Amino acid sequence: MSVRVAVFGATGVVGKEMLAILEERMFPASDVHALASRRSIGVEVSYGDRTLKCADLENFDFSKVDLVLMAAGADAAREWAPKIAAAGAVVIDNSSAFRMDDDVPLIVPEVNPDAIDAMPRNIIANPNCSTAQLVVALKPLHDRAIIKRVVVSTYQSVSGAGKDAMDELWTQTRGIFVNDPVTKEQFTRQIAFNVIPHIDVFMKGGDTKEEWKMTVETQKILDPAIKLTATCVRVPTFVGHAEAVNVEFAQPMPAKEARALLRESPGLMVVDNPDEDAYVTPVECVGEFATFVSRLRDDPTVENGLNFWCVSDNLRKGAALNAVQIAELLVNRGVLKSAA
Amino acid sequence: MSVRVAVFGATGVVGKEMLAILEERMFPASDVHALASRRSIGVEVSYGDRTLKCADLENFDFSKVDLVLMAAGADAAREWAPKIAAAGAVVIDNSSAFRMDDDVPLIVPEVNPDAIDAMPRNIIANPNCSTAQLVVALKPLHDRAIIKRVVVSTYQSVSGAGKDAMDELWTQTRGIFVNDPVTKEQFTRQIAFNVIPHIDVFMKGGDTKEEWKMTVETQKILDPAIKLTATCVRVPTFVGHAEAVNVEFAQPMPAKEARALLRESPGLMVVDNPDEDAYVTPVECVGEFATFVSRLRDDPTVENGLNFWCVSDNLRKGAALNAVQIAELLVNRGVLKSAA
Repeated sequence: MSVRVAVFGATGVVGKEMLAILEERMFPASDVHALASRRSIGVEVSYGDRTLKCADLENFDFSKVDLVLMAAGADAAREWAPKIAAAGAVVIDNSSAFRMDDDVPLIVPEVNPDAIDAMPRNIIANPNCSTAQLVVALKPLHDRAIIKRVVVSTYQSVSGAGKDAMDELWTQTRGIFVNDPVTKEQFTRQIAFNVIPHIDVFMKGGDTKEEWKMTVETQKILDPAIKLTATCVRVPTFVGHAEAVNVEFAQPMPAKEARALLRESPGLMVVDNPDEDAYVTPVECVGEFATFVSRLRDDPTVENGLNFWCVSDNLRKGAALNAVQIAELLVNRGVLKSAA
Repeated sequence: MSVRVAVFGATGVVGKEMLAILEERMFPASDVHALASRRSIGVEVSYGDRTLKCADLENFDFSKVDLVLMAAGADAAREWAPKIAAAGAVVIDNSSAFRMDDDVPLIVPEVNPDAIDAMPRNIIANPNCSTAQLVVALKPLHDRAIIKRVVVSTYQSVSGAGKDAMDELWTQTRGIFVNDPVTKEQFTRQIAFNVIPHIDVFMKGGDTKEEWKMTVETQKILDPAIKLTATCVRVPTFVGHAEAVNVEFAQPMPAKEARALLRESPGLMVVDNPDEDAYVTPVECVGEFATFVSRLRDDPTVENGLNFWCVSDNLRKGAALNAVQIAELLVNRGVLKSAA
């Protein structure tokens, strides 16, 4: 079979990765459309060796496609996803618009593929970037030893906030070299040579929405019984999110066993040998499909405690790759019936 | 009274801060000597408006001073501190050489000033940078509600690794703008636009020595009963360490109460109002004396849980300021009897 696909928001950092990954993974697409808002009509984007010209999403006939990968903001998603689904296409949405809706599955294919069985609205949600890589690492451990509680601190790259945020890190950094004043638009503080404990908006109680998302999305994808508290921090890296994770299990999960278990688990790559300084940092994960786990250590301060370090390309596993994996799942399970 | 002081290692990033802070805080010094290794003899360093010429530490007569602030590595400290103490001066050492020795007090003046009463070797140790700011924040909370367990992830600036490390961040970053290849000497990975979960050497069990120090130093300074697990991460900031801290107490410690308590506690500045984006980031703490606490939040995932964010100038509270505060303590308690 082959699928007629549209990428909605094709000029953004995630949209471009979606096109790249559809091609890299040889997704069985018979037809690929790049859609963008009016000001980007005609802009050229790459799909493998081919160049696509962005079409106007406002005037696109969505009945011509089977699948739409949405890489736009939550507002655009709320406006467009229901219309697209009504036109007959399945929507995989990367925004936070529908993630916590009961009738929208929130899927990480390595973790909860069966959630795809119920999608009454023809909309599937892609999780937040920092959640996606975390649940891939937690899932095999949870299956073996039952996670009770997670304390996680993140080191999130600016690409999670989009292209303008990447430009701001670049421009501020260059400005510091040539003594230009630092100007801020995307971030509340200087991000060049700084870290900012503030991602998305603050909520009642003092958590940011990014921190809240990590809790509720992990519960929806993996297990509602898991308790998770997060501190989400923006750091001056361009691509690749890192997480320092502390886990408390109901049953023993020594680092040695966790290492062996995670080595055999889907979507993961264990790089963990202190004797050889073997661990993964954000710049090393860019462009990779895997979620990398390093620095697995017993935590003796709590019963059945474990520390680890987890790194992944936030534009890939945290966004575009996971969306394409969901699309692959739809194809493999015969959910997308199409142009065959 | 007035004190004859020498700063040992006066050309390093910490030595320079020691001289600056002695002057800023109007330490009652009758005489200040800047000492350095042979290759830096004659190098000029600032002490307030005055300029000092570095003298050769090898040929310095330590019986001419009452107090030596040491800002050298652990090897130099092990060689020199006993000789200096034997010559009659009190040594405040910033290295890790003596910190865990039973007969050397490890002091953060806001936390355990009375430890100064027993210093049989005339050597006092200054804690590790990431520990110093943490215990200042933890102490008032511990006194009120008894800390059981701490999970901390750090965001540590390159200045903690010295001047060459700062130069490496600068040079690598500039190199990326002009397409020079990234060369690494001070760090195991590229530090520009990256984060590295590796500070100091790896130990048996997988913790780094930096992580181990945070545990054992917190126990020695604050309370041996506190359990602490740390993940220490180098980030591309020049000065200022940040920490995401999760604490479990024996008794209730709501964020609201913690905020009020910490506002009244020595050495601390609470900047915490999400409605106004009020929190402190590393670039904002540079040159300050305070340890800043922000983002105090109840952690509902554990009984009596609390999250907070803690930032301080690692060259100041984490090193030079704390050493000068110890010197002030010696003066205030009449331990230094001198040139009066």
